[in-house]
Amino acid sequence: MKNIIRILNIQTRSERDFSDITSKVKEEVSKSGVKDGIVLVRSMHTTAAVTINENVHESVPKDLLESLEKISPTQSNYRHNTYVRFCGGVGSDTGAAHVHASLIGSDILLPLEKGEIKLGTLEGIFFLDFSGPRERKVLLQIFGE
Amino acid sequence: MKNIIRILNIQTRSERDFSDITSKVKEEVSKSGVKDGIVLVRSMHTTAAVTINENVHESVPKDLLESLEKISPTQSNYRHNTYVRFCGGVGSDTGAAHVHASLIGSDILLPLEKGEIKLGTLEGIFFLDFSGPRERKVLLQIFGE
Amino acid sequence: MKNIIRILNIQTRSERDFSDITSKVKEEVSKSGVKDGIVLVRSMHTTAAVTINENVHESVPKDLLESLEKISPTQSNYRHNTYVRFCGGVGSDTGAAHVHASLIGSDILLPLEKGEIKLGTLEGIFFLDFSGPRERKVLLQIFGE
Repeated sequence: MKNIIRILNIQTRSERDFSDITSKVKEEVSKSGVKDGIVLVRSMHTTAAVTINENVHESVPKDLLESLEKISPTQSNYRHNTYVRFCGGVGSDTGAAHVHASLIGSDILLPLEKGEIKLGTLEGIFFLDFSGPRERKVLLQIFGE
Repeated sequence: MKNIIRILNIQTRSERDFSDITSKVKEEVSKSGVKDGIVLVRSMHTTAAVTINENVHESVPKDLLESLEKISPTQSNYRHNTYVRFCGGVGSDTGAAHVHASLIGSDILLPLEKGEIKLGTLEGIFFLDFSGPRERKVLLQIFGE
Repeated sequence: MKNIIRILNIQTRSERDFSDITSKVKEEVSKSGVKDGIVLVRSMHTTAAVTINENVHESVPKDLLESLEKISPTQSNYRHNTYVRFCGGVGSDTGAAHVHASLIGSDILLPLEKGEIKLGTLEGIFFLDFSGPRERKVLLQIFGE
């Protein structure tokens, strides 16, 4: 069995941002030489997430970011904001970002068969940053034969 | 290692619908002959999802569909709806469906031991369609020995 | 390939509660002797969930529980509550808890390399109970070599 772990570095551009990482994931899978197994994609941050959704147009990831903001608004009261301010932390208003991260989730798992990850038509892999802009890390695990 | 991939075809019956696919998943796992490993269940669509929840009575999946509709209503403004209308697309009001798909998620992973998937009491596997009725596909990967 | 399955017993303390299970998971992984593969963490209940988020301070899991309560309040109308009451069930107001469980999800998957699970800085593994206090079970699968 091969167990290949790679880190993708992603520079996000704004406070709430998305990146389509589909081609980067496919490239690493191709380079790994692993043909059959699984591919795990993991956000390594507690204020970011990964998801699969339509990548034909940027409207879908933008809707997702805006809907999360409506579901748990940045400007609500979060215990975490109070805690970070009390500690003199910078970038303290991340309470909502942590909630959004757990609502979307930090990992996605893809099947790998004959060297190809199995995505549906129009599906792409997105990294979502709820507390950017920053340099972020996504871990990629390719486990198989 | 065996790497078995199967597609389940699911005919949904209404715009927002659920299907209990537990017995279909168990049947395919049994047929695969794989005894120890993992079972990945993946919705292949960007307006559908898979989840595990109580399958004693239809009240739980119905609550879930109705709650998602309250969380991100179909009738809100979504960039995706405007985009699809602009392109002359049919079935254009799927903005909410894409958000619901990412909130629930497109994959679930189950442990397989001695030929049995390990589910808790009352747990079942549901496919949720947020933009039906359609013929939908769920990918099943059975990876192990 | 090794396929190790362990059950973690978790005693929750209140109706809506969280437990940081990071050190328990790491301990079982270490005891398993498996060095390279995957670690699956699964809630075995339909009114509980597992997630990864910041574990520096209890503010984050508390924000998460409170935000879910705002997103789908316990006191709304759920079909499940009516159904359970009709059947004479106890602990009947769990409609919201089932919704929260599917919003967060029942499984998380972690990469295992050289005996170590790969978590980002500040990341911890949380079990969330939406219908406690009870003794709960989390399944841990360690699959690899």
